[in-house]
Amino acid sequence: MSDGGLLAPGWTGSPAAGATDDAAYLRAMLDAEAALTRAQAALGLAPAEAARAVTEAADPARFDVHALAERARAGGNPVIPLVADLTEAVGPVHGPYVHRGATSQDILDTAAMLVAARALDLVLDDLDRVQHALAGLAAAHRDTALPGRTLTQHAVPTTFGLKAAGWRSLVLDARDRLSAVRRSLPAQLGGAAGTLAAFTVYGAGDAGALPGVFAAELGLREPELPWHVLRTPVADLSGGLAFAAGALGKVAVDVLALARTEVGEVAEGSGGGSSAMPHKANPVRATLVLAAARRAPQLAATLYGALVAEDERPAGAWHAEWEPLRDLLRLVGGAARDAVELTGNLRVFPEAMREHLGLTHGLIVSERLAAELSDAVGRARAKELLTSLARRTYAEGRPLAELLAGEPESKGLDLAELTDPARYTGLAGVLTDRALERR
Amino acid sequence: MSDGGLLAPGWTGSPAAGATDDAAYLRAMLDAEAALTRAQAALGLAPAEAARAVTEAADPARFDVHALAERARAGGNPVIPLVADLTEAVGPVHGPYVHRGATSQDILDTAAMLVAARALDLVLDDLDRVQHALAGLAAAHRDTALPGRTLTQHAVPTTFGLKAAGWRSLVLDARDRLSAVRRSLPAQLGGAAGTLAAFTVYGAGDAGALPGVFAAELGLREPELPWHVLRTPVADLSGGLAFAAGALGKVAVDVLALARTEVGEVAEGSGGGSSAMPHKANPVRATLVLAAARRAPQLAATLYGALVAEDERPAGAWHAEWEPLRDLLRLVGGAARDAVELTGNLRVFPEAMREHLGLTHGLIVSERLAAELSDAVGRARAKELLTSLARRTYAEGRPLAELLAGEPESKGLDLAELTDPARYTGLAGVLTDRALERR
Amino acid sequence: MSDGGLLAPGWTGSPAAGATDDAAYLRAMLDAEAALTRAQAALGLAPAEAARAVTEAADPARFDVHALAERARAGGNPVIPLVADLTEAVGPVHGPYVHRGATSQDILDTAAMLVAARALDLVLDDLDRVQHALAGLAAAHRDTALPGRTLTQHAVPTTFGLKAAGWRSLVLDARDRLSAVRRSLPAQLGGAAGTLAAFTVYGAGDAGALPGVFAAELGLREPELPWHVLRTPVADLSGGLAFAAGALGKVAVDVLALARTEVGEVAEGSGGGSSAMPHKANPVRATLVLAAARRAPQLAATLYGALVAEDERPAGAWHAEWEPLRDLLRLVGGAARDAVELTGNLRVFPEAMREHLGLTHGLIVSERLAAELSDAVGRARAKELLTSLARRTYAEGRPLAELLAGEPESKGLDLAELTDPARYTGLAGVLTDRALERR
Amino acid sequence: MSDGGLLAPGWTGSPAAGATDDAAYLRAMLDAEAALTRAQAALGLAPAEAARAVTEAADPARFDVHALAERARAGGNPVIPLVADLTEAVGPVHGPYVHRGATSQDILDTAAMLVAARALDLVLDDLDRVQHALAGLAAAHRDTALPGRTLTQHAVPTTFGLKAAGWRSLVLDARDRLSAVRRSLPAQLGGAAGTLAAFTVYGAGDAGALPGVFAAELGLREPELPWHVLRTPVADLSGGLAFAAGALGKVAVDVLALARTEVGEVAEGSGGGSSAMPHKANPVRATLVLAAARRAPQLAATLYGALVAEDERPAGAWHAEWEPLRDLLRLVGGAARDAVELTGNLRVFPEAMREHLGLTHGLIVSERLAAELSDAVGRARAKELLTSLARRTYAEGRPLAELLAGEPESKGLDLAELTDPARYTGLAGVLTDRALERR
Repeated sequence: MSDGGLLAPGWTGSPAAGATDDAAYLRAMLDAEAALTRAQAALGLAPAEAARAVTEAADPARFDVHALAERARAGGNPVIPLVADLTEAVGPVHGPYVHRGATSQDILDTAAMLVAARALDLVLDDLDRVQHALAGLAAAHRDTALPGRTLTQHAVPTTFGLKAAGWRSLVLDARDRLSAVRRSLPAQLGGAAGTLAAFTVYGAGDAGALPGVFAAELGLREPELPWHVLRTPVADLSGGLAFAAGALGKVAVDVLALARTEVGEVAEGSGGGSSAMPHKANPVRATLVLAAARRAPQLAATLYGALVAEDERPAGAWHAEWEPLRDLLRLVGGAARDAVELTGNLRVFPEAMREHLGLTHGLIVSERLAAELSDAVGRARAKELLTSLARRTYAEGRPLAELLAGEPESKGLDLAELTDPARYTGLAGVLTDRALERR
Repeated sequence: MSDGGLLAPGWTGSPAAGATDDAAYLRAMLDAEAALTRAQAALGLAPAEAARAVTEAADPARFDVHALAERARAGGNPVIPLVADLTEAVGPVHGPYVHRGATSQDILDTAAMLVAARALDLVLDDLDRVQHALAGLAAAHRDTALPGRTLTQHAVPTTFGLKAAGWRSLVLDARDRLSAVRRSLPAQLGGAAGTLAAFTVYGAGDAGALPGVFAAELGLREPELPWHVLRTPVADLSGGLAFAAGALGKVAVDVLALARTEVGEVAEGSGGGSSAMPHKANPVRATLVLAAARRAPQLAATLYGALVAEDERPAGAWHAEWEPLRDLLRLVGGAARDAVELTGNLRVFPEAMREHLGLTHGLIVSERLAAELSDAVGRARAKELLTSLARRTYAEGRPLAELLAGEPESKGLDLAELTDPARYTGLAGVLTDRALERR
Repeated sequence: MSDGGLLAPGWTGSPAAGATDDAAYLRAMLDAEAALTRAQAALGLAPAEAARAVTEAADPARFDVHALAERARAGGNPVIPLVADLTEAVGPVHGPYVHRGATSQDILDTAAMLVAARALDLVLDDLDRVQHALAGLAAAHRDTALPGRTLTQHAVPTTFGLKAAGWRSLVLDARDRLSAVRRSLPAQLGGAAGTLAAFTVYGAGDAGALPGVFAAELGLREPELPWHVLRTPVADLSGGLAFAAGALGKVAVDVLALARTEVGEVAEGSGGGSSAMPHKANPVRATLVLAAARRAPQLAATLYGALVAEDERPAGAWHAEWEPLRDLLRLVGGAARDAVELTGNLRVFPEAMREHLGLTHGLIVSERLAAELSDAVGRARAKELLTSLARRTYAEGRPLAELLAGEPESKGLDLAELTDPARYTGLAGVLTDRALERR
Repeated sequence: MSDGGLLAPGWTGSPAAGATDDAAYLRAMLDAEAALTRAQAALGLAPAEAARAVTEAADPARFDVHALAERARAGGNPVIPLVADLTEAVGPVHGPYVHRGATSQDILDTAAMLVAARALDLVLDDLDRVQHALAGLAAAHRDTALPGRTLTQHAVPTTFGLKAAGWRSLVLDARDRLSAVRRSLPAQLGGAAGTLAAFTVYGAGDAGALPGVFAAELGLREPELPWHVLRTPVADLSGGLAFAAGALGKVAVDVLALARTEVGEVAEGSGGGSSAMPHKANPVRATLVLAAARRAPQLAATLYGALVAEDERPAGAWHAEWEPLRDLLRLVGGAARDAVELTGNLRVFPEAMREHLGLTHGLIVSERLAAELSDAVGRARAKELLTSLARRTYAEGRPLAELLAGEPESKGLDLAELTDPARYTGLAGVLTDRALERR
């Protein structure tokens, strides 16, 4: 069995893919084992030579990941065969210091946090690129008016700048959540049942210092308690990643809506082709981002469900975490990469936007007219009048301004100004400016 | 149609239930409408009398929630008929100031945040009771040893104190996450397409100040941007609530495991009865908490999925949020209430725990013996010896200590001490103390 | 606590809503209790008078559903207080025959199946209306060409008839699945642990016949085994309902795409209004159907998860089913009602469709041209030529046919015919006819 | 990037794993391409030599799956680069017949169905082994009594035979559902927008026969309509697989409950070891099956959600299906393999079961006594008496039979018989026999 990402154009080849594959997990597990022996040595619980020997032996190139995968089946996790191989690689003298006092979950959880940390760093870099591109779009199109759409219908005008600023705001929210999670990722060390008991046998009263030293070796946070069945770190990752997928998914779904052939207000920098139809330029990046966003919430649900983990280590809840956590990291990693391309190369067509502002013959500013007319003739009459004019506008295909000019109630109103959609974008510009101040 | 919670013993009658029912939403929507007019008055965009009139008319008792529900169908949301009724209740003079400049989503989103805030306050109170009860259990049972169980099997000893401290740690994590979300809940105000345009028509340049004043009227946070389609607040609620459900679910699943008839190490204060079997005392509270924990992740998934909301207001994504958000608030509210009873009245049976420590005839400390023997005879021989003695222990039903005493390798070891499970709880006490320092 | 559907315009007031509310469950539980005593009487295990007395007392009007809901909390299910009240209502003589030999789950599961059966009958009626309306649309628009869209871009032409026929095919698939589930719904009868033991104490060897007689009294299927923890019926409902929600969601998402202001190829019969914008006609029915489709899969996931129900009756898995099952029935019931209106009143605008076929200046038939040219000049040259012409078509805004006419390779081709989109709908008509043969 | 199943001991190395990896998809895509050309040849739309050439070139060994995966990114699916490579492999003469008239989705959907078919055949074989093993257990333990447990507490006795028969019934339900899905799996053929238009250009009126011939070449069913956006086959797979995962999960969760150290009524044939604790024999197979069952519902939810696929081919919904469908096939394939081992080697300990029947000192048959005493002294008095005796039984630790003998109401009752749990298994034996008749 070997997968190379054939079914995953959304994340194959992305930095996050490389940071989360089997080789990355193998490396992280070996990093954890080596750090454990080094931490014990640092506290005088093991000889310094053992720490050196284990660190040297913990070289991924010396291990057969496929064989480990198959041998993982017997005990239900890959650490068991890995410890056997590493112990053998270290040799009889220092072998006993391999994995000493630890349980499989200490290593696999710690490795998962290392993998998550490495993948999140890449994701955060890409999110930063995305927010930067979006800031550029928001600033460039601060005053580019286009139809605001609600329930698929033109409502009132807005600006593309505000749209991009909103996307950026979501992306910054995602960044903030993932950054906080990134900083909080802890090492895991508890021993067989989370009491660190074995470490007390192998040494003196220093066992309590071990988790901290172990975590420091790996650049992870010291846990408050062993968290074999207190799955806060995984739940937090899950929430942060589901958020990020959704944030990017919002950008994607908007791009897809604006890129429809009939709308054509934006286009991807270089759309994907089609073998059969030479003319097609598909919004492939947005499509793949959206696909990720459709999957992430359910993966997160599985991980939130794993909080319900019985006893000191559970039969199933933990095992159900491994692949979904990796899947989430990959999906978000891939989506962030695609979002970089998507937002960095997005082509915006202000003329199309302006043209569409006229599609409803002025009705897109009916809200404004209702307000102005209300002042003059009262709210009820204003609504009645506009509803009847709206009907005529559709039926006769004539501009609202023209019809309104024929009504006595419109006397004294500057209809040209009042019915210009580009002059009814409210505080879009101000809101955009304000949003762009956020760093 | 009328539901009174017949299918929901987990949350019916809880404080959170009352804070989230149709009447609560009605009240919150009216609060939002009144605050909107007041905020406009405060900025000089509406007469003070209008603000008073709307506030007075916004009395839930004057509205028929069932009729509103039915009339909500035409436009797809309950704000439309509510505005009609409220406008009529206010009367022709000040009626035009009702809902002026707003869109339905401004009101319903704001109401949802008010409801969430009120429900979360109740949940947070209950979580505090739970953590307090758990702190008491942890302190009282700091040194009460019981079998640590992994993959359903006795592993090494732990303490009930550490178990309770772990539960508390998770509950505090839930509290911290929900508190942060509670503080962040924003009002919503954007108008038809999120540009606040209508407010600029009705007044001067003060429209930009309106959201802040509106939010302050309601005790909510001022939003960075209108968030009609930037659903951070809902996603954050969803993550926090799913976390809380899972945290309480962890407590419940452990109680259920320890309350099994064969285990009997804990029991609920007053179990639920059975009509057919007079002897039964079911762990009902834990059961209902677990039921909530099984549902919450999927509800959260729907809400995370709603981040993907197209355009300026979406056709479906928003509508799909309303019931799941309420469901989550209720489930967690009910689970918190049940957890208060569960943890406050939990009966703990240390004798049963001690008895079970002996069930494996001493094998529960085989890890310790392996460590001690390794020092004496080397790791390989130690493992071999213990594996063979383990087999004999099971086959002959004789204590490991007794069998070990017959082996030459055990010379000089204090077997009574080494095989006493209660003396092999590692750092459980220290970890418990440390965890209890957290406030 | 009382909910009247304020947050649920998607299903409030629908037939399925009335068939699934608390009153409906109360009625169904009483039906089950009465049928149980009658079945025992029929087998000589209870006096006929008792059966009559229980049947008469099992009148929903005599029970207080709110009080039952609150009292359900103690034991964790509503059957316990219901049995107490029913026993009292029956009186001391025949009271002992109430619920005799049964367990709460027998009654609640049976009631859920009755509710599901009644709700599904309504849903199936509405699905039949939907398929009928869609058959009409498909037939009427068998040859109405419109752009086929893939990844949001015009691909090649298709017909609205084929689109409607496809929708109908999915709806028929939903109908077939739900019909099969409807027919399979079983009564539940197992007693305390699914052995029917108590019934053997109260009578002779006829206990084995009891489930069949009980089921027949209620118009449900006799179960193969008591299914307290063999949740096939709930899982099947869950799959069928998730399918139906998705099938209707497909119709809705297409309507929403075609109803966009820029597209305008269809419109809802009477769109929902907006208080602020007099001109808006929102596709509300499609919006609410889509909202249901976004929620159903996760509710189904919770129900599929409940298959994992430990022991003879589980602590939590069962309790987690009640509300999600009802939610699914309601969501699908409401969506089916909305789909009836949506499809029955859909307005179709063939002129808009035809106009859009020209939006790509003929490139929508580039596949056809590629094929025809390939025959003449080879596949590679054809592709090269068309790619270059496509570029020019976009750049110069000139029709592909015109540009092609200037190329020597197009000699002898009937360009008017070949570039007419309406003549390149392939087998759309044939496929539509074939699909409409399905009943 | 290359994964070898390191995080997936639940399915790595299983037959289903080999049938679903990248190589399997590559082979299936090539099978589809070759069959398409052969089908065209069979209908006279392509030369027989082309069919032979394509079939010969469609040899997986000639393709680089990793390179294809990377090149899939541009267009968002792996068929585009595959067609390029296959066309080149076939050479200039017959190359034009590769993929002629088809769209990428035709090939990938067909390949997914081929993969699903092949994987399901393996799963069905394993489910048959499981049901066979369970039938053996049910027959062998038809009369082995053990405590029936509800809400974790002893309720009334049942038999291990009935338990095993129930497991088998669920497994047969899973088999029936998956068999039906297996038989229904269709080929996909629709061309660019599902109208089969391109095929009409390349040939005569035979295009309508093409899907049937294509499907027959591959042993798949002819579709009613092209199902690019009518995702019944995927939804059906999803439901069937989620069901199967849940059915096996039920077996696993029961084994885990019965295998707890304190219960010890069953054990896995050869439990998984632990590096640190020589005595441990973990129920690893059940653990991994349960882990699969915790993940499957949410994967199915994603697939049900993909029914909502807009237009003629969607931007994202389809792409979101690929990995979850494969994940489900693998998870269920692995779980079925583990279930074969689990059920085939399960060790059952009737003595432990019998011993546990006595744990409640006779209260486990209180239901029976309530019934018998009710006949003698009325239901109310019987309940009162038993409730008080139950209390004394717990408090004094004396058998219920002994206490009851001291009560005047028990005169004339055969207490030895009435309080023997093994004689109160109701119809367990009969139900077991009946269930075993199902084939």
